[in-house]
Amino acid sequence: MKKQKVIEKIKNDPLFALRHSAEHIMHMAVEDLFQGAKKVMGPPIESGFYGDFDYNGKITEEDFLSIEQKMQDIVDANLAIVVREASYKELKEIFQDNPYKWEMIEDLEKNKEKATVCEIGEKGSKYYDIDLCAGNHVARTSDVKAFKLLSVAGAYWRGSEQNKMLTRIYATAFDSKEGLDEYLNILEEQKKRDHRNINKNLEVFALFEEVGPGLPIWLPNGMIIREELERWGKETEEKWGYVRVSSPFMAKRKIFELSGHVPYFEDEMYKVTVPGEQEDEYFIKPMNCPFHHMVFKSKPRTYKELPLKIAEYGTVARYENRGAINGILRPRIFCQNDAHVYCSKEQAIDVFVEIVNLHKYYYDMLGLNNYHIELNLRDPTKMNKYHGNEEMWQKAEKITREALDKSGIKYTVVNEGAAHYGPKMDFKIKSAIGTEYGISTNQIDLYSPERFGLTYIDKDGKEKPVIVQHRAPLGSNERFIGFLMEHFSGNLPVWLCPIQVEIIPIGDKHEKYAQRVKEALKAKHIRVEVNDKAETMQSKIRDAQVKKIPYMLIVGDKEVEKNEVSVRLRTEENLGSKPLEEVVLKVEEMYLTKSLNLW
Amino acid sequence: MKKQKVIEKIKNDPLFALRHSAEHIMHMAVEDLFQGAKKVMGPPIESGFYGDFDYNGKITEEDFLSIEQKMQDIVDANLAIVVREASYKELKEIFQDNPYKWEMIEDLEKNKEKATVCEIGEKGSKYYDIDLCAGNHVARTSDVKAFKLLSVAGAYWRGSEQNKMLTRIYATAFDSKEGLDEYLNILEEQKKRDHRNINKNLEVFALFEEVGPGLPIWLPNGMIIREELERWGKETEEKWGYVRVSSPFMAKRKIFELSGHVPYFEDEMYKVTVPGEQEDEYFIKPMNCPFHHMVFKSKPRTYKELPLKIAEYGTVARYENRGAINGILRPRIFCQNDAHVYCSKEQAIDVFVEIVNLHKYYYDMLGLNNYHIELNLRDPTKMNKYHGNEEMWQKAEKITREALDKSGIKYTVVNEGAAHYGPKMDFKIKSAIGTEYGISTNQIDLYSPERFGLTYIDKDGKEKPVIVQHRAPLGSNERFIGFLMEHFSGNLPVWLCPIQVEIIPIGDKHEKYAQRVKEALKAKHIRVEVNDKAETMQSKIRDAQVKKIPYMLIVGDKEVEKNEVSVRLRTEENLGSKPLEEVVLKVEEMYLTKSLNLW
Repeated sequence: MKKQKVIEKIKNDPLFALRHSAEHIMHMAVEDLFQGAKKVMGPPIESGFYGDFDYNGKITEEDFLSIEQKMQDIVDANLAIVVREASYKELKEIFQDNPYKWEMIEDLEKNKEKATVCEIGEKGSKYYDIDLCAGNHVARTSDVKAFKLLSVAGAYWRGSEQNKMLTRIYATAFDSKEGLDEYLNILEEQKKRDHRNINKNLEVFALFEEVGPGLPIWLPNGMIIREELERWGKETEEKWGYVRVSSPFMAKRKIFELSGHVPYFEDEMYKVTVPGEQEDEYFIKPMNCPFHHMVFKSKPRTYKELPLKIAEYGTVARYENRGAINGILRPRIFCQNDAHVYCSKEQAIDVFVEIVNLHKYYYDMLGLNNYHIELNLRDPTKMNKYHGNEEMWQKAEKITREALDKSGIKYTVVNEGAAHYGPKMDFKIKSAIGTEYGISTNQIDLYSPERFGLTYIDKDGKEKPVIVQHRAPLGSNERFIGFLMEHFSGNLPVWLCPIQVEIIPIGDKHEKYAQRVKEALKAKHIRVEVNDKAETMQSKIRDAQVKKIPYMLIVGDKEVEKNEVSVRLRTEENLGSKPLEEVVLKVEEMYLTKSLNLW
Repeated sequence: MKKQKVIEKIKNDPLFALRHSAEHIMHMAVEDLFQGAKKVMGPPIESGFYGDFDYNGKITEEDFLSIEQKMQDIVDANLAIVVREASYKELKEIFQDNPYKWEMIEDLEKNKEKATVCEIGEKGSKYYDIDLCAGNHVARTSDVKAFKLLSVAGAYWRGSEQNKMLTRIYATAFDSKEGLDEYLNILEEQKKRDHRNINKNLEVFALFEEVGPGLPIWLPNGMIIREELERWGKETEEKWGYVRVSSPFMAKRKIFELSGHVPYFEDEMYKVTVPGEQEDEYFIKPMNCPFHHMVFKSKPRTYKELPLKIAEYGTVARYENRGAINGILRPRIFCQNDAHVYCSKEQAIDVFVEIVNLHKYYYDMLGLNNYHIELNLRDPTKMNKYHGNEEMWQKAEKITREALDKSGIKYTVVNEGAAHYGPKMDFKIKSAIGTEYGISTNQIDLYSPERFGLTYIDKDGKEKPVIVQHRAPLGSNERFIGFLMEHFSGNLPVWLCPIQVEIIPIGDKHEKYAQRVKEALKAKHIRVEVNDKAETMQSKIRDAQVKKIPYMLIVGDKEVEKNEVSVRLRTEENLGSKPLEEVVLKVEEMYLTKSLNLW
């Protein structure tokens, strides 16, 4: 389903035809350079394309330059690209030596689908290629203005391990040199910002083969970030009228039958065998909602208690295949900033607006201003995978759209991606370099109240169903902190930094004063360390810089004498010598106000 | 093993013989009163005894009075109790109608064990009983000075569901009326203090059939207690130099092989089936230690870093059979106040003393002063269930004893109950009414460093193994809060109370002032609510009393006029009218100082 969505996006990309053509040029070059290499297939993908080859030798990144040169030759030849219909017979003759194309032709024949070919250049001339292809193309090879090969990997024919391993070359192409350069810069920047790279210096989390893939351990530095964030979440939620609960990470099958997770999603859930309880099946929870519903219905509720906001930092497990796992951005276990708001029908829209405002509050504080909601509705081609009846869905969609309009938040609509019980709203945030992250998922849910029998007694004495709103503005600790690491490129706001101040005594004789500076900062609960290693000042500064410590306070003779510290920021800005007291107050202010500035 | 320990304790109890005889008197009475009832067996147990009967009718608590009267009759008859040897032949004749006794006689015969009988009274007189019995007895029935039947339940013959369900009557007996009365008072008090009873009014946790046995959900009130306690634990640990981590609740088999949990304890562990990972077995963690060991060894360590104190509020799952599960005192999942201290051999004793001092600090603050350590060593009859070699065990025991001596804490030694990797120290605390709770478990561990290869580089440049100390002064949140609920009989210290202040306006016109009082308290982060229900003041006071809310502030005309509040404590003490400002300051002081007093 997610895959389908990406494909739609690619087809709408103006560069689609160009990249499709670039792939043809690439396979022409590869077949020309590597004896016996057979083109298999190669579609455009998001921001590029790839080509698969059956080749018995090895193609490595070292071959990229010669392939690119050959491609440039074909581009410079300014060949015409023509797409035309072809008969199955003609095709089978052309591809008599290519079993992959044969298989595709037979599929077309079986389904009685029209076959088209794409021809590049004149038959018999220096460069000529004909390929089975249904895509759009640019008119001439010279329209491919800029391209670059990126990486090479193995891939099974049709994705099945039963089949032969092919060689896949990833590449990209643009309609201008500038477009390509810009993209390559972003790639470079993304790599630098990859939270797994940043983690090497920040020591936020660790993964161990003995523990398992997707199961990170939070290290002391990571726990400081996590606990600061959780404290903020909890304090904020308390102010906004939430109460907290904590539910076990596993439960009987029964509750997940109620929630509708089994039998539909059973294959993706983690089954638990409890000793001595053979008669019952247990699962690790993939979400916290069923437990909150139980708390809601644990006693009779009246209109006076609504909206009831039940919050939990709850740890859930969801299946991710090994290939999709990505550090803490996409682990197999994660702890959600979760809550469910139980309200009356009349309150639903105001409650939703309040939830959007809570998101805004959090994101504003963190300086995140490039975000929108993606409203995911039912996929009309897969109506059998949703619970509930048509009336319920239309009602839920109507409330959701009204609420979105009233909240004034930007949103786009996608006809797929709904939760099994209702329309889903994904908060998408763009990072500093424009990479998009799905952070928080919200739903207005009319299904669960019916399943769990969640009702309240209204003013008129009548029992009525509540509406549930699922929300998680800070997403999961894992994903959100992974995102922050990438967004800030490791330069977290002062309040989130594991070490906020590094004190660097120039010589041994300044260590005593360094300790006094440390105590002055610690008295304000500022996280500080003294680097008393036998290293040069320059190397200590480099070390602190690498660890993204916001403040370096250098102390030497002059500073000791004047009760000052020489302030250097991680931005490499040198603020010179300042009175200790002023610096302590400044750092404290930046910390307590959750400032995004350093000074 | 635990069972064996209890049996030893009972045999050493001076009331053992008396209770054994009382059971004989009970079965005489039952056989006399209930036509066809057959005595089966009945041993003394801790603080009492029980008797099993095969009876086709129903014996209920309503029959207790007549059974007790009949027993008193037998006691008053002052019959002699005589134990003598008997031949298998004689016994089989006597018990020709009792298949249970027959089975026991045949067992004795098979094992060639001597058989003894206990005779009470003269054959042919009003009361006479002969029973197969190997126990000690008092000389005459009149030595049983006081007794009481307590409850009745079903129990399978020899504990197997394959066998017939018998009727089991629980009872107790003492050598004086005072002894019995004292015991019954304690029983009554224990019942009142049972945290499951207290929970009905305090709403700390909830259990649901749909979730599963032993899997409590923490309710909002419980979460307040839990978060206050955790905050205290975290702040204290930070001051004492701990760093924090967080590890996933499940991991591969491999890490539990390293820790020695599998294959030995595999049957008691919760197995997890991870979709798409058929090649690996996963388990839910029964302890946090293996993960902390991985963090320790995730980078090279030097003597400068020792002692390294790695803490985690970590949630673990351990198997408890359904019968042993008890609210939050003994659930199947619980969150430990866990940490592991990694130190050099030279530091081991000082580290241990520091850990004992940390325990003392916590317990003193909570006013718990009746505690000691039980040092659990290896059971000499079960040496095959311990890892490591003899030298390691002796070294570990030596360090442990030296450390205990140096810490000055009271301790007793038990030759069983060691962990599989080292001697175990259980902190046992007696509650206000003398009930003993195992709260915290500590170990000095030489085994894990060897298994995990936990070493450091010492001053002399040599690589040496560390010693690990496991500790959990506040036990698990579940058990510790369950204990506090029972110890304080629900009257938690102010800082732990979910609602600290209840404001009770006398009439509608006082509600505005009540809100002002509320705001004044909330400004100091005091947890407060206004009871504005349409109820009488008396009923509101009763309600707050039941919920164990420490302060009730009653506001009426006089209070509004003078800017005062009328203070009533949950102890029913009435402090009269006091200036609002004074009351706010007092409650804040009690809260912030974690005082055990109310005023």
